[in-house]
Amino acid sequence: MLYEINEKALRLESEGKKIIRLNLGDPDMATPPEIVEAAYGAMKAGKTKYSSSYGETKLRAKIAEAHGVKTENVVITPGSKWAIFSTMFLMLKNGGNIISPTPYWTAYDLIAKTIGAKTKLLHTNMEDGWKVDLDKLQDLIDSETKMIILNNPNNPTSKVMDSETLDGIVEIANEKGITVLSDEVYGAIAFKKTKSILDYGADSKHILSNGFSKTFTMTGWRIGYIVANKPFVDNVTKLNQITFNNVPVFIQEAAMKGMELHAQIASNIKAKYKARADLASKKLKAAGFEFTAPEAPFYVFPRRKGLDGVKFTLNLLDRGVAVAPGSSFGDYPEHFRISLTAPDDQIEDGLNKICEAT
Amino acid sequence: MLYEINEKALRLESEGKKIIRLNLGDPDMATPPEIVEAAYGAMKAGKTKYSSSYGETKLRAKIAEAHGVKTENVVITPGSKWAIFSTMFLMLKNGGNIISPTPYWTAYDLIAKTIGAKTKLLHTNMEDGWKVDLDKLQDLIDSETKMIILNNPNNPTSKVMDSETLDGIVEIANEKGITVLSDEVYGAIAFKKTKSILDYGADSKHILSNGFSKTFTMTGWRIGYIVANKPFVDNVTKLNQITFNNVPVFIQEAAMKGMELHAQIASNIKAKYKARADLASKKLKAAGFEFTAPEAPFYVFPRRKGLDGVKFTLNLLDRGVAVAPGSSFGDYPEHFRISLTAPDDQIEDGLNKICEAT
Repeated sequence: MLYEINEKALRLESEGKKIIRLNLGDPDMATPPEIVEAAYGAMKAGKTKYSSSYGETKLRAKIAEAHGVKTENVVITPGSKWAIFSTMFLMLKNGGNIISPTPYWTAYDLIAKTIGAKTKLLHTNMEDGWKVDLDKLQDLIDSETKMIILNNPNNPTSKVMDSETLDGIVEIANEKGITVLSDEVYGAIAFKKTKSILDYGADSKHILSNGFSKTFTMTGWRIGYIVANKPFVDNVTKLNQITFNNVPVFIQEAAMKGMELHAQIASNIKAKYKARADLASKKLKAAGFEFTAPEAPFYVFPRRKGLDGVKFTLNLLDRGVAVAPGSSFGDYPEHFRISLTAPDDQIEDGLNKICEAT
Repeated sequence: MLYEINEKALRLESEGKKIIRLNLGDPDMATPPEIVEAAYGAMKAGKTKYSSSYGETKLRAKIAEAHGVKTENVVITPGSKWAIFSTMFLMLKNGGNIISPTPYWTAYDLIAKTIGAKTKLLHTNMEDGWKVDLDKLQDLIDSETKMIILNNPNNPTSKVMDSETLDGIVEIANEKGITVLSDEVYGAIAFKKTKSILDYGADSKHILSNGFSKTFTMTGWRIGYIVANKPFVDNVTKLNQITFNNVPVFIQEAAMKGMELHAQIASNIKAKYKARADLASKKLKAAGFEFTAPEAPFYVFPRRKGLDGVKFTLNLLDRGVAVAPGSSFGDYPEHFRISLTAPDDQIEDGLNKICEAT
């Protein structure tokens, strides 16, 4: 449904209709110019050759430093999607299943299916603050379970997992010998401190996937990374060698520049999205929607009892605002997802139309 | 062995030794500056967002035009390696085998193995001008054979397949319902006309993989493409959506600029490598090596009866010249591969040392 809505929005736009696009997690801001200049400088310096499938040592070291791990624990990937695909491919190509709490990013399930693995969904509710029930998790695990995949902070709820729940999940995973793959792509720009899977040690079985897209407004640059134990990093690198070979070095130099400016860029982005989240919360609350307060960019995932999320989304699109129906993220028919990734005036307009549309 | 030689070469260089690098197919020339500027312009114009997993329509149309096919037959990939990996993944993830004539690019076999498919090798000899024996091909095919993979022009022999042999292979493939995947990454810069797999129609079962690396000196940019029937292009695109998502749009714009300057760039590259191939042929012949004359960039694949290719390669590396042993390309222990991808003076030096080393 996510893709269909986007296709319809594009079609309406091509017919000349003005659409406020609050349906995708692609920030409206431009990539910071320092990052663009770093890429250009590297290109002109001839950094346009084949390179290591691990990624550039300099960038790996910088990422390792940021996470408090060793350079050997880091491998560069073309986006965090590749980090997730390659991890699942290596762990599941001979079968097995994964457990994913919902609401979830549907790509997880699509990737698992494509590889031939099953996804077991673990439903969480807004009423419980989107908390994972550890007993339910225990019950879902069977002898074929290879992985628990977490998205922390979460898309679409923008909820940060509380550290007790994460402790509990990791404890269960450790007991059963299961890997936790933690997608923390919104972690560096969360509004509150987020406990990372790396807080349990980089030499464990657990794996971090992360990217530069959200933190540095570099979505279309396609650069991310995996942090894991060295043998796993070596295996990902072997897969990199026979698939895309290397992320262009000039793109790695651009990401390096982003890391150097991290404090400044990340705090700008955080402030901007916090203000948007506050505005959205105020308006949605006044209009009687229920939701948990966003603890990270970019999303709000409101509900109204009795709402038909798909119908609501389609009607809203006809009124010029694109959002995503809750059913795109699991069994959430009364919810919808708003991405606060348009210019401020459009967000305000869009929110007004959403609040009127009910 | 290819990777080990390269690692050793890098180690020797880091120890301060001067190594002439004739072991990799990474051209010494820089990416043309017009291409770099096109990428920079696109970055500054904000072409840094998520984009279509098919690739940009403009670039697909330009490629389609160059090959005489429709835009819908083209999908953009991060390098021709991904074109090959994704094709094999989609066709072989549920098992099967492929047939690959040798000498061959070892990545084919590594990819097949990683996916869980078997590779059946079809040996060809220098004495027969590296011709594929069609009877032997028939014999190798069994009920599990899904694909014949060709590299035309060939790495490491730089031989262009004669059109009668290609006709014969395609006829057999059509009879048996097998796909021919033709890697024609050296095709646009071959010294003689190369019959393409697309000459048998783009709506057939057969697939072209190609890249911008060799034609436009864009190795490290990671951009290539697949030409195939529309349903297959759609399937590759679905895989793209859950792996790398899209090749950065500014890289696609750079490739577009390359296509616009194609005639000029390709003829420069052709002339340069033809001169290098002629020099290598003259020197190697005078030193008593046997080989077929290169019909494309970048390689020569000489032999001397009784030579131990691995030992020869290692000894030569100690004398400051890196080449690749024939055993890296199949059962060719008396051969080695020279890549003519270093500055001219280094190539001349390197060839002299190779000729003295015997």
